[in-house]
Amino acid sequence: MGGDYAPHETIKGAVAALEQQNIELLLVGDAGAVEAELASYDLSGRPVQVVPSVGRIGDDEHPMHAFRRKPNASIVVGTKLVKSGQADVLVSLGSTGASMATASLILGVMEGLERPCIGGPFLGLAPRTVLMDLGSNVDCRPSQILNFAALGSAFAYKFMGMENPRVALLSVGAEKSKGNRQVQESYQLLEQSHLNFVGNVEGMDFFTDKADVIICDGFVGNILIKFTEGMGTALGSYLARQLSPYMSEEQMKDVFNDLWETTNRPRTMGGPLFGVNGAVVVGHGSCKAEGVTGAINTRRALH
Amino acid sequence: MGGDYAPHETIKGAVAALEQQNIELLLVGDAGAVEAELASYDLSGRPVQVVPSVGRIGDDEHPMHAFRRKPNASIVVGTKLVKSGQADVLVSLGSTGASMATASLILGVMEGLERPCIGGPFLGLAPRTVLMDLGSNVDCRPSQILNFAALGSAFAYKFMGMENPRVALLSVGAEKSKGNRQVQESYQLLEQSHLNFVGNVEGMDFFTDKADVIICDGFVGNILIKFTEGMGTALGSYLARQLSPYMSEEQMKDVFNDLWETTNRPRTMGGPLFGVNGAVVVGHGSCKAEGVTGAINTRRALH
Repeated sequence: MGGDYAPHETIKGAVAALEQQNIELLLVGDAGAVEAELASYDLSGRPVQVVPSVGRIGDDEHPMHAFRRKPNASIVVGTKLVKSGQADVLVSLGSTGASMATASLILGVMEGLERPCIGGPFLGLAPRTVLMDLGSNVDCRPSQILNFAALGSAFAYKFMGMENPRVALLSVGAEKSKGNRQVQESYQLLEQSHLNFVGNVEGMDFFTDKADVIICDGFVGNILIKFTEGMGTALGSYLARQLSPYMSEEQMKDVFNDLWETTNRPRTMGGPLFGVNGAVVVGHGSCKAEGVTGAINTRRALH
Repeated sequence: MGGDYAPHETIKGAVAALEQQNIELLLVGDAGAVEAELASYDLSGRPVQVVPSVGRIGDDEHPMHAFRRKPNASIVVGTKLVKSGQADVLVSLGSTGASMATASLILGVMEGLERPCIGGPFLGLAPRTVLMDLGSNVDCRPSQILNFAALGSAFAYKFMGMENPRVALLSVGAEKSKGNRQVQESYQLLEQSHLNFVGNVEGMDFFTDKADVIICDGFVGNILIKFTEGMGTALGSYLARQLSPYMSEEQMKDVFNDLWETTNRPRTMGGPLFGVNGAVVVGHGSCKAEGVTGAINTRRALH
């Protein structure tokens, strides 16, 4: 029930995933609405099951309060399916805060960690660079920044095959003295850690291969992702003016589609929720069917 | 003496500005080094004067400590020229922190403000959108965020001709409840102010015309600028692959030059230092001659 286009696009994308991938589908939501949508597909004999829930937790609600007020919301029911083993992976397009709070409370946070986070390679122009956190934690203590670094390093090692991932802090200068208080204090923790900490990097270093894993708080990470998406879209219009003397509209369309995907990666796939005892994938709330299929596909990285 | 290519490129750019613009030039720096550079130009009869200074304050120094330890550093001598009225504008390519600290101490901060800041339209793709702060203040109290909003609003009104500039806070969601503690507390101050405050905007809203003036702390602003610069450069290589079937190398070069300028605006011009009692322009430390000329040209906005 989460996301801007639920349940219509969510179900369309989920059904497409069912066609392409070897999965069984549990659709959690308002039973009437979900079944009405399903009626337009021929799914006889396919492994699809509707699991009823009541209501949803919106982006505008305080996740923890909403969790207690709406014990049967779709995100709560879905997360419980993972906890009980009825589902292997939960894919949510809803509020990241709600997904995170619910996963923390129901699945539990891994031992030694304070809070989960989201992250991964977010930019097609830098497909091997992992950014953590992407928006789940807006106010962070240095110990949380250290958590993100450990999770990012483990992700790069385990899922991207990097032997000894270089971990860096996102800051405003390379020197140790540069950065806000949070970065300066986190620097000291990272220096003392067993991670392969290479110091501070700056905004341009997503493109300079100085680090494999770049760490920031979720406030900065979220702004960067959305800025990149907006810039990709704006560049489309800008380049249309620049390129029209040289290329046909059809040719430009191919170039722009690729550019959009390169700058809007989070809209074409989901990201794992790191640090909880269970597999949860968080997709972009503005996903249409294709993005939903992509988010479901992300589960592969988690098994 | 500030910037990565001083004094060679700085003097080259300054001499070029002298050719193009109706200015008198005071070159502040190590007299030997500056005069050696000047020897390669024919400046007989031109209004150029060397004002000797001793040493420079680097990016790696604490601005306030360095100010006291190096009372004859180029930035200090230069700022004093503005204070005494011998110069109308100071243009610095050196450490932003040093320029800001020196200007605050020598010229003084405008009544009612806590600290100066830097800002302006930073992106060719959004040439009418002002971002403050661009990196001079990395840890900010909400009252400083309010200062930036007032300065940005005044700048948009006075220098960009906007009647009632829409001021917004950069955050992770449009709702009042979204954002880190700093944004949430600043929101309340801005709501009570007399500015035309339109609420929170997100990363993509640099491109959506929801606000004329977007406010963030210098940590976020600096990362955004440098990210944009890096992305512009990376997009050049990416587009070269995409466009090579359609265009000649020469044609692509024109497109890429324009793209670079669009995404590297701060490298082609300087930005005013806002909130001090005197005209100071801060240029990008990596400026070559052309950027130095551009920074000197920025003075026009201040008169």
